[in-house]
Amino acid sequence: VGQMYVKLLSNHPFFDVTHVAASPQSAGKSYKEAVGARWFMNTEIPASVRDLVVSDANDFQSVAGKCDFVFSALDLDKNLILSLEDNYARVGLAVVSNNSAHRQTPDVPMLIPEINHAHTAIIPQQRASRGWKRGFIAVKPNCSLQSYLTPVYALQAAGFPVSTMIITTLQAVSGAGYNGVPSMDMVDNTVPFIGGEEEKTEEEPHKILGRIEGDRIVADTAIRISAHCNRVPVVDGHTACVSMGFAGQKPSRDEILRIWKSFTSLPQQMKLPLAPAQPILYRDEENRPQPRKDRDAGKGMTVVVGRLRECKVFDFRFVGLSHNTVRGAAGGGILNAELLYKQGYLTQA
Amino acid sequence: VGQMYVKLLSNHPFFDVTHVAASPQSAGKSYKEAVGARWFMNTEIPASVRDLVVSDANDFQSVAGKCDFVFSALDLDKNLILSLEDNYARVGLAVVSNNSAHRQTPDVPMLIPEINHAHTAIIPQQRASRGWKRGFIAVKPNCSLQSYLTPVYALQAAGFPVSTMIITTLQAVSGAGYNGVPSMDMVDNTVPFIGGEEEKTEEEPHKILGRIEGDRIVADTAIRISAHCNRVPVVDGHTACVSMGFAGQKPSRDEILRIWKSFTSLPQQMKLPLAPAQPILYRDEENRPQPRKDRDAGKGMTVVVGRLRECKVFDFRFVGLSHNTVRGAAGGGILNAELLYKQGYLTQA
Amino acid sequence: VGQMYVKLLSNHPFFDVTHVAASPQSAGKSYKEAVGARWFMNTEIPASVRDLVVSDANDFQSVAGKCDFVFSALDLDKNLILSLEDNYARVGLAVVSNNSAHRQTPDVPMLIPEINHAHTAIIPQQRASRGWKRGFIAVKPNCSLQSYLTPVYALQAAGFPVSTMIITTLQAVSGAGYNGVPSMDMVDNTVPFIGGEEEKTEEEPHKILGRIEGDRIVADTAIRISAHCNRVPVVDGHTACVSMGFAGQKPSRDEILRIWKSFTSLPQQMKLPLAPAQPILYRDEENRPQPRKDRDAGKGMTVVVGRLRECKVFDFRFVGLSHNTVRGAAGGGILNAELLYKQGYLTQA
Amino acid sequence: VGQMYVKLLSNHPFFDVTHVAASPQSAGKSYKEAVGARWFMNTEIPASVRDLVVSDANDFQSVAGKCDFVFSALDLDKNLILSLEDNYARVGLAVVSNNSAHRQTPDVPMLIPEINHAHTAIIPQQRASRGWKRGFIAVKPNCSLQSYLTPVYALQAAGFPVSTMIITTLQAVSGAGYNGVPSMDMVDNTVPFIGGEEEKTEEEPHKILGRIEGDRIVADTAIRISAHCNRVPVVDGHTACVSMGFAGQKPSRDEILRIWKSFTSLPQQMKLPLAPAQPILYRDEENRPQPRKDRDAGKGMTVVVGRLRECKVFDFRFVGLSHNTVRGAAGGGILNAELLYKQGYLTQA
Repeated sequence: VGQMYVKLLSNHPFFDVTHVAASPQSAGKSYKEAVGARWFMNTEIPASVRDLVVSDANDFQSVAGKCDFVFSALDLDKNLILSLEDNYARVGLAVVSNNSAHRQTPDVPMLIPEINHAHTAIIPQQRASRGWKRGFIAVKPNCSLQSYLTPVYALQAAGFPVSTMIITTLQAVSGAGYNGVPSMDMVDNTVPFIGGEEEKTEEEPHKILGRIEGDRIVADTAIRISAHCNRVPVVDGHTACVSMGFAGQKPSRDEILRIWKSFTSLPQQMKLPLAPAQPILYRDEENRPQPRKDRDAGKGMTVVVGRLRECKVFDFRFVGLSHNTVRGAAGGGILNAELLYKQGYLTQA
Repeated sequence: VGQMYVKLLSNHPFFDVTHVAASPQSAGKSYKEAVGARWFMNTEIPASVRDLVVSDANDFQSVAGKCDFVFSALDLDKNLILSLEDNYARVGLAVVSNNSAHRQTPDVPMLIPEINHAHTAIIPQQRASRGWKRGFIAVKPNCSLQSYLTPVYALQAAGFPVSTMIITTLQAVSGAGYNGVPSMDMVDNTVPFIGGEEEKTEEEPHKILGRIEGDRIVADTAIRISAHCNRVPVVDGHTACVSMGFAGQKPSRDEILRIWKSFTSLPQQMKLPLAPAQPILYRDEENRPQPRKDRDAGKGMTVVVGRLRECKVFDFRFVGLSHNTVRGAAGGGILNAELLYKQGYLTQA
Repeated sequence: VGQMYVKLLSNHPFFDVTHVAASPQSAGKSYKEAVGARWFMNTEIPASVRDLVVSDANDFQSVAGKCDFVFSALDLDKNLILSLEDNYARVGLAVVSNNSAHRQTPDVPMLIPEINHAHTAIIPQQRASRGWKRGFIAVKPNCSLQSYLTPVYALQAAGFPVSTMIITTLQAVSGAGYNGVPSMDMVDNTVPFIGGEEEKTEEEPHKILGRIEGDRIVADTAIRISAHCNRVPVVDGHTACVSMGFAGQKPSRDEILRIWKSFTSLPQQMKLPLAPAQPILYRDEENRPQPRKDRDAGKGMTVVVGRLRECKVFDFRFVGLSHNTVRGAAGGGILNAELLYKQGYLTQA
Repeated sequence: VGQMYVKLLSNHPFFDVTHVAASPQSAGKSYKEAVGARWFMNTEIPASVRDLVVSDANDFQSVAGKCDFVFSALDLDKNLILSLEDNYARVGLAVVSNNSAHRQTPDVPMLIPEINHAHTAIIPQQRASRGWKRGFIAVKPNCSLQSYLTPVYALQAAGFPVSTMIITTLQAVSGAGYNGVPSMDMVDNTVPFIGGEEEKTEEEPHKILGRIEGDRIVADTAIRISAHCNRVPVVDGHTACVSMGFAGQKPSRDEILRIWKSFTSLPQQMKLPLAPAQPILYRDEENRPQPRKDRDAGKGMTVVVGRLRECKVFDFRFVGLSHNTVRGAAGGGILNAELLYKQGYLTQA
């Protein structure tokens, strides 16, 4: 994910990468040395980053005052992440995080900018209650729910709230990091389990669809969600097979298609650099979306849906797909930063 | 599937392969020549079959009187299969079929011997209404439902009928035949669509769980089933992710496990050669069943289940897996023949 | 390959796609309809092509006068291709072909523009001997040799001719077309044979490295080449493992690296749109080049090499990689057309 | 590899597994607990092993006197293995090792029983020079060379020594252990490098083909070998593409086939339980051997060869394949133990 950040931030109109931090073992090396033979983007390391000296990510003091904000994507124990992100915020840095540690913290917004951009309004409360002047923490949700939550939200926003969903995901190996899934498990095989993933897929939507009440975001638990998560031999691109029932009146298939095709939100209106022109793309072919062929839609930021049809048990079924390391990780994190930047949170004293 | 039949029938205690038929292009060649470089079992062609001369499968007349019954696994148009299987039965041959053509014919039994062995009692009716003396047609259901229907039936047989199921399958490429799925679709990819598969997965269970009334099998449509079928890069082994709700009283998790672990049926009591000692095997590991590691349980005839847990929407969730070219195709067909043989249908005049 | 042409020609500075032809079954449909659910580029069909009406490729008459030249990539019998390409040339069209049919025709240039751009000088002879005024045929070589021939030529051009090569390729499935390689052969498997590929890999370099004598290109058979060709489960990108011996003086490892890193040729000097700035890219990491990570170098037109080391039998060993459907197919064809355009062959009467 | 040993030793006619040792973390657990969710054979853990208590492999003292010999397959630093294997031998245990640590120790035999069964005669020397009474060390070579060395030796034994070989391997992921190769490297990819593998592939044959002189095995360096080693997305089965030149007179293609088809050696004459009836199996199909289809020949102990044809540079080319975790690891280790047992080395005081 760090590498994807570096790739996507190359030539970014708002942001420059000025500082790179990693584990103590990499500290003191150039970024290129630290990455070594494990750079696995299909483009070169951007020239502006390759010679940056990597610092120890634990040394938050040394970054204070040198950056406007940090992107945080850490492979550490939850408690270590909680304290490290707090420390970065305490010394005055905005922390735009990919990690799950703070996702259920009530005054930390968990953002999909097309859905809950309004949740950034909790930031002044977060600062106030912790005594932070400039720093704060904002997070993005788990990659698995990006494949279906925006299409479901679009229906809700159009007056058709969904009450029940059963979801099965087919998730790409990059979601577990470079060493996360042994090839012994992914040749002639799939694995019907990903630790912690079903819980995140079922619970995080409630907070994202919630609303600010006082100093906290209150979850909307109206949607009941049951998730089955599978790992499949795909590099990038999480697929979700979704059956959904509506809370009240049920739209027609044509209405759903019309709502999806016309859906845009604040990131599109603000023309944020990574916001896709079309957040939801519907494909008519009977055998789409497919990970390799559809994950790059909208430069990896569009959710691609297909196969909308009646469900024999609930109301409708569809298949959703999103690029888990772009929209679901680094791209989603950068879009959050773009939103926060335009709303003034990254620069205000 | 033809090759798997030849492999599994090698040294069979009841049956000898005495005749092999295929498309007109192969007619006149030895079986070995006809198969050529496309034998892809990982054992050799059995010596008793390799030199058999292949006949034209359309020439049903030439087989009459030379075999007791035929296995039928054809890659033809539905109407051609209907007429060909009728012709074989008319000349006095029992037809044990893998094909879908006759599955919805009301007086043709669609058998999973552990579930509906009693449906063979329709055969005398079938013969009578068509004027066939010796011949008849029996079929097996689609491979996709083998991964979950036996576990669900075991619960129903124990007094806990299931009313609602939402199923997502991850299906192996062998299910589509050697040329069925291009590798261009299965490298770094999955496909969320298999033509006709969702309909079969949703409808065939109704007939299998039905009962004989007069001269027809009447479907039991009490279970509502919604299926999402995906193709994944796995050679053999269909996985099903299942959420299920019970019609009446809901068993506890322990009761379900006890029912599954102790389930046996007529094929086990008859000690049919291909009947697995344990039709349902529950694995405790959190990340099982997996296709490559579990498909060979019970020589490919056992359904392996795992991950039984509460469902956030219905009552329970689980993962089922079966070997699609053994239990789901050739092995299932042979088990049907073994049942029919022991019940006397293959030899009676 | 046709789809890759359409993708790469989108917004091309020299060429517009004005006409699309295919098999008779597709004739009369729009390009989008004809492609149907089988468009498998990860970008959309360019708007300028999607509504073009597809004509029957056999109807060469109808194209005469309407295009300046045609790209030919046909899945037909060799004799049909020979006569069809001749017919297109006869009615006045330049034929820039991907097919192997005319590769060994002595007065048809087989071009890798960085190596034998001078072979286009045979075109006036070709026209004269056949009585063609405007039309002619130029071809590209097989995709498998693109992964190693440019690096070997660069050494030869620097004064170090290679005399002997043993090559083993690991070739991507896209090289065989969408239906070319069944997934049954590419899950947990590789195939050590590709029909006709070893012969092409061994023989085509001789013509490419040859020279024009009178009305024919005379092959240079000085390099002895032995090739082993394997199919592996990779979408795009052919790898070649090469052991090579030099004819005379042997360069040092440093000299080879210097030659490769500084190599450019006429396409770079002409700044042809698809010519990569760096035709040969050397990667220092011990485990590169790798297909997924390196095939897109130079937009798929660069040959990526690595692992240059001494050979225990010959002089040196290295690994080369090129994108088989870009450099090895559509991109190579377009680069040929760009060269021919700049040299005036596409427009002269 | 440990798991494969446990599987293959189930019901072995000579040997019983009475003791299992592993890393200190597993010590004290039952074998089933220690393996946990990572048992990945497609058969169950044998009942005789599942409840054995795992000991700490470092505690060689506790094993002394309780076993006749140990199989050693360790994932440790070379120096740790050297001292641990020495310690086991010192306390009186024969060590039949899979590890590379002692392969180049001059008085340790490196055995492929079909080739150099005579090298066990060095064992008395090994014992004498170290003052060991009962213990000794014997090793097996690297898995990669098993795919081609037996066929080459068969030719040499028939009077046609090979002088030169260039080999490219396509190696399965199981060769690197469960966590050895990340799936991120094996989806839509191959890797042209395996650390240390080319050196082993080039050097170990020299010792295996060597002869005992006094107290050491003297390598035969007459064959010059150059190896290119690739990792490919295959579970089990290493493929080798081989070009070879003969030292003296060159046999005809028919002679080579006759030699391979009739080759047997001491393990076959002794009828060792794991010795395949046919050590070398030649397949006539043009596209074989293939890993998934051929690795199980002779229960994984046969080397399958195919595609014997003239080489454009040397004399002949062929493709060889062997099962890397059976013949190349656990099966090869057990065959070594069977040979040593029959020769009396495991039981003599």
